[in-house]
Amino acid sequence: MKQKLKIIKIGGNVINNKEVLSSFLADFSTIKEAKILVHGGGKRATEMISESGLKPKMVNGRRITDKKTLEIVTMVYAGLINKNITAQLQQNNCNAIGLSGADANTILAHKRVVKDVDYGFAGDVDIVNSDVIKILVENNLTPVFCAITHDKNGQLLNTNADTIAAELAKGMSNYYDVELIYCFEKNGVLTNVRNEDSLIEMINLKSYQNLKQKGIIADGMLPKIDNCFDALQNGVTKVIIGNPEVISDQNLKYTTLVL
Amino acid sequence: MKQKLKIIKIGGNVINNKEVLSSFLADFSTIKEAKILVHGGGKRATEMISESGLKPKMVNGRRITDKKTLEIVTMVYAGLINKNITAQLQQNNCNAIGLSGADANTILAHKRVVKDVDYGFAGDVDIVNSDVIKILVENNLTPVFCAITHDKNGQLLNTNADTIAAELAKGMSNYYDVELIYCFEKNGVLTNVRNEDSLIEMINLKSYQNLKQKGIIADGMLPKIDNCFDALQNGVTKVIIGNPEVISDQNLKYTTLVL
Repeated sequence: MKQKLKIIKIGGNVINNKEVLSSFLADFSTIKEAKILVHGGGKRATEMISESGLKPKMVNGRRITDKKTLEIVTMVYAGLINKNITAQLQQNNCNAIGLSGADANTILAHKRVVKDVDYGFAGDVDIVNSDVIKILVENNLTPVFCAITHDKNGQLLNTNADTIAAELAKGMSNYYDVELIYCFEKNGVLTNVRNEDSLIEMINLKSYQNLKQKGIIADGMLPKIDNCFDALQNGVTKVIIGNPEVISDQNLKYTTLVL
Repeated sequence: MKQKLKIIKIGGNVINNKEVLSSFLADFSTIKEAKILVHGGGKRATEMISESGLKPKMVNGRRITDKKTLEIVTMVYAGLINKNITAQLQQNNCNAIGLSGADANTILAHKRVVKDVDYGFAGDVDIVNSDVIKILVENNLTPVFCAITHDKNGQLLNTNADTIAAELAKGMSNYYDVELIYCFEKNGVLTNVRNEDSLIEMINLKSYQNLKQKGIIADGMLPKIDNCFDALQNGVTKVIIGNPEVISDQNLKYTTLVL
């Protein structure tokens, strides 16, 4: 039987609130199983992009990463956020090691191919080197990934953090019984985003098609759920979407994805 | 007999020049022995501090690290510079892993005690966890350290890169036959800083006292050489100071420190 591994992704909403982040990291540190944390960006990068006179450019909800934007996200994601999270986990006696995809060549990507839109230095993941991540995990280290990858030609690339979490989960499922947990600002997938009680407790591939057609699941939730099903179809045991307290509160409700 | 380990420190002058850095990293990647790279900051952090309206504050040649300055150096050192160096080493097939002292709890420090001057969030190194660094090195990874440490209480600290290199060298000498190489903009220690031919090829503790008394070695070179002798007195086999080409050019002259 494979050993359990939890891969938990937190988004900007957790990172932006000092108390929420601190409480989450304390809870995360108490998880006894092997674990990996993946974090998104938060508002700080957007602020810095504005301060530097650049206008954040978005197309279809995705950021266009020009050279200057890549510099800023590398500084904020891989530097400021990643190292502060790592230091806080160390404070909680969790032996965290902050990583980008360039570190130990853990996540290889390529610059997104230009079709209708040129996303600039945006990376699409090719390979997760699960062997080296396994070595870290086996030595009781807890990898903390930011959403920066590289192309093995010296180029760093800005990569969607939800996708990184899913790709890590797929890659690590060669060796582990992987549970993938997306934590965000809602209780899970809702039929009405303004009503936290409208939680959908389970979504399978068939009901997902239905919910999409009816427009109940739309916009930014679509790529997130696509990542979930991609993970389930590629060896990941369990995928859930919930709020940050889901990792500590056994009674909390959340959305489970099943095939 | 212990295995050889080279610890090489590069300063701002190497980082500031794209071609010099690129050439250095290509040379570094060809080193067959186990190796660790330590990098300083470079002018980018100073520029960002100025751009943000802060005035870089220096006392006795050391930076005063207030909260905003710490944020910037964390972004630039641990993010921008560290990840770009790591990506470039990966391009050269050197399996680099970028680290701060918080990562895997590799370097523990404390906030410098306030005596005459309050240096702010400046860290003085307490412990190098050589065991975990050894695990990385044994797995054919090449640690790349920036000059950020932590205090295990969640606080990141700005730490002198020369000191980090010396402390790493001392710590790793428990397991390895360590050679410590400081690369900077001169050919080594010079009797006349304007004349590259005035190289002092060997300095021992006695001649160092002499050179200090005569004022031939002064200012920023003093703490650097103090670090060298500290390393030699604590198990490090060999310490040299030279220009970046010293790692590839066998015929190049440099300064060797001996007790």
